[in-house]
Amino acid sequence: MKKKIAVIPGDGIGPEVMKQTLRILCFIEEKFHHEFEMEECFAGGVAIDKEGTPLPDHTLKTCENADAILLGAVGGPKWDHLEGTDRPERALLTIRKELGFFANLRPAMLFPAMKDACPLKPSLIEKGLDLMVVRELTGGIYFGEQKTFTDKAGKKSAYDTMFYHEDEIRRIVRIAFEIASKRKRKLLSVDKANVLESSRLWRKTIIQEAKNYPDICLEHMYIDNAAMQLIRDPNQFDVIVTGNMFGDILSDEASMITGSIGLLPSASLDADQKGMYEPIHGSAPDIAGQNKANPLAMILSAAMMFKNSFDLTREADMIESAVEKVLDEGYRTADIYSENTVMLTTEEMGQQVLDT
Amino acid sequence: MKKKIAVIPGDGIGPEVMKQTLRILCFIEEKFHHEFEMEECFAGGVAIDKEGTPLPDHTLKTCENADAILLGAVGGPKWDHLEGTDRPERALLTIRKELGFFANLRPAMLFPAMKDACPLKPSLIEKGLDLMVVRELTGGIYFGEQKTFTDKAGKKSAYDTMFYHEDEIRRIVRIAFEIASKRKRKLLSVDKANVLESSRLWRKTIIQEAKNYPDICLEHMYIDNAAMQLIRDPNQFDVIVTGNMFGDILSDEASMITGSIGLLPSASLDADQKGMYEPIHGSAPDIAGQNKANPLAMILSAAMMFKNSFDLTREADMIESAVEKVLDEGYRTADIYSENTVMLTTEEMGQQVLDT
Ligand SMILES: CC(C)[C@H](C(=O)O)[C@@H](O)C(=O)O
Ligand SMILES: CC(C)[C@H](C(=O)O)[C@@H](O)C(=O)O
Repeated sequence: MKKKIAVIPGDGIGPEVMKQTLRILCFIEEKFHHEFEMEECFAGGVAIDKEGTPLPDHTLKTCENADAILLGAVGGPKWDHLEGTDRPERALLTIRKELGFFANLRPAMLFPAMKDACPLKPSLIEKGLDLMVVRELTGGIYFGEQKTFTDKAGKKSAYDTMFYHEDEIRRIVRIAFEIASKRKRKLLSVDKANVLESSRLWRKTIIQEAKNYPDICLEHMYIDNAAMQLIRDPNQFDVIVTGNMFGDILSDEASMITGSIGLLPSASLDADQKGMYEPIHGSAPDIAGQNKANPLAMILSAAMMFKNSFDLTREADMIESAVEKVLDEGYRTADIYSENTVMLTTEEMGQQVLDT
Repeated sequence: MKKKIAVIPGDGIGPEVMKQTLRILCFIEEKFHHEFEMEECFAGGVAIDKEGTPLPDHTLKTCENADAILLGAVGGPKWDHLEGTDRPERALLTIRKELGFFANLRPAMLFPAMKDACPLKPSLIEKGLDLMVVRELTGGIYFGEQKTFTDKAGKKSAYDTMFYHEDEIRRIVRIAFEIASKRKRKLLSVDKANVLESSRLWRKTIIQEAKNYPDICLEHMYIDNAAMQLIRDPNQFDVIVTGNMFGDILSDEASMITGSIGLLPSASLDADQKGMYEPIHGSAPDIAGQNKANPLAMILSAAMMFKNSFDLTREADMIESAVEKVLDEGYRTADIYSENTVMLTTEEMGQQVLDT
C-alpha cells in the first residue's frame, strides 16, 4: 500500500516522540511492503518562530495532499503571550476546520499494566476501563461568531456563539452510532438540553437519527451530571458522543480517569477516512529535549492511523500489542515510572517497542 | 434576630428534607431567641401541576420579600417532556436572574467519616479535601441570546451566546478573592482563553482585579485541564472561580470527587448577603415520599444561610458540628450507608441531628 503521510512534529516533546514513531513506521513499511511517503512540516510555536504564523500555507497544503497526518504537540509558555489567531493552538483549529476533521475519537482505556496509576479506587475499575468519547470538532462554540467590544462607558464585553446546524449534528452522531454498533451497542449523548437551544436541537437530531440504529441503546445525560458519573462509575458508559466544548472537557476527564494520559492517542477524521492523529498529551516543554518523554501515545496514534485511515488492521494490532507487551513487561518512561518497573528513555522505549 | 425566610420545598424528596431542616430551624430559633418568619411557597414541577407555571408570581414575590430562601429540589421525569421556559428548572434560573444571585458558592468537602465513599484512591485524599468552587450564576451562555431557526431547505439550526460584560466578571471574581483571602490565599481562575473571546475578557479582568488583592496567589487554567487536574490531585486547589457553564460542570465534578453529594450544600448570593440555599443533589423522584432521603445537605444549606445571609456564625457552627458528629457516630441514611454503620430514615436522621 502506498500512502502519503504529513508529519508535523510541532513543539516541546513533539519532535522526540515523533522520531520514535517514525522508526516504527519504517519498520512496518518494510515488514509489510508498504510505501509511506512522509513529508515533514512545521506548525505551532516552531512555525511562529520560523515563519511568523502558526500554520504556514505550505503546511496546510501538505496536509491537504496527504492521506493522513501525524502531529506531535503544539504550544508552550513561550507563545502564551500571543493572542487569538496568533497562538500555536490555532494551527490545530485551522487544520481541523479546513480539512473538515469533524469527528474526534478519543479512546480512554486503562492498560492492565497501568492499573495502579488510575486515580480512582481499585473497586471502581475492577473490570478495567474502555471508553470512547466521540467529540464534534469543527462546530459549536469553538467556531461560532465571537467578538470583544467596548461600550460608551469604555467598558468591555465579549461573546462567543455556540452554533449547530442539524446536519453538523447528524454527521457526528452517525459516526458515534457506527462505532457503538461495533462495540457494546450503547451510546450516551451528552448535552445541556435543559438550558441550551443548541443542545435541544442536538438531542432532537440524535433521537431522529436513532431510528436508523434500532439495535443501539441511546441514552442522554446533562454535561454536569456526566462529569460526575464519569467519576462515580466510568464503566456505566461505553461510547459517549457530544459537542465540541463538552467533548473537550469530557474527553480529557475520561482520559485522566484512566491515569494514563501519557499513553492515549486520538484521531480527528473527515467523512472519507482521512484524519489527523495525535497524542492527547501536550508539548510538555519542561522536559523537552531531554530524552525523557513518553513516545507511546504518539506510537499508538500511528496505530489509530493504520486502522482508521488505511484499513490496515493487522499493522495497527501489531503496534498495539507491542505497546501492551512492553508495559506488561514493566518498561516505563519517567512519567509513568513506579517502583519495581524499569525506567527507559524516549529512545529506549521506541527501541523496546520495535524489539517486541 | 428577626428574619423572613422563603421556604420552597419543591419536588421529589424536596419536601421531606425540608421538613427535617425546618425542625432544626425551630430549634435554633428557640435556643437563640431568634424569630424566623417562614413562608412556604411552590416552585418547580409542583407549581406546574398546581398553577401551570414553574415559578408563580407570588412565589417570586415571597422570595423578593424574604431575607433568604431555602429550596429543596426541583424537577423530575414527570416534567421532562416540557420545553424551555416551561420546565421546572426554569424556576431556579428565573429566581437567580430576577433576584440577582450572581455568586454561587459550592463547597466540596470530604467529611472525615465519609472517606470510604470517595471514588478517588485513598492516597489522593490523605490530607482530606476541602475546595470551594465560586461559579458565576446569572451570566454567560445560560442567559445569553438563544434561538432555533429553520433555513430555506427546511433544516434547523440553533445557537446560544456566551456573553460576559467586564462588570459581571469583576463582581464575581471579587467575591472569589474575598473568599480566598479567608482561606489559603490561593485562587484558581478557570476559562478557555485559548479559544473563547469571553474567556479572554474573563482572564484580563481577573488579572486587573488581582492588583487589589496582592496577597492572593492567582493562577489560571483551561477548563479541559481543570477537569483533569481535579481528578489527578484535587488538593492542589483551594478556591476556584469560573463562569456559569464551566462552573456548572466543575462544581459538580468537584462534589462527586468528595463522594458525598448527598451531603453538600450550596449558596447563591446577591451583592447584599441575600441568598438562596439549596442542597446540590436533585429531587431523586425514585425514592421520594419513602422517608429514605438524606436531609443532611439541606440541613447544611440552612447552616450556610446562617453564616452567609444572617452572620449567625455560632448557629451555623452548631449545625455543622452536629452533622459531623452524627456522621462520626456512624449514623447514615440509605444513600450513604455502608457496612458497620447505622441506617436511619429521613426523620430519624433529622432527630439525630437535633439530639446531638
Ligand atoms: C488546544 C485547544 C484549542 C484544543 C481544543 O480545545 O480543542 C485542545 O484542548 C484539544 O482538546 O485538542
Ligand atoms: C437545573 C440546572 C438549570 C442547573 C444549572 O445548570 O444551573 C443545575 O444544574 C445547577 O447546577 O444548579
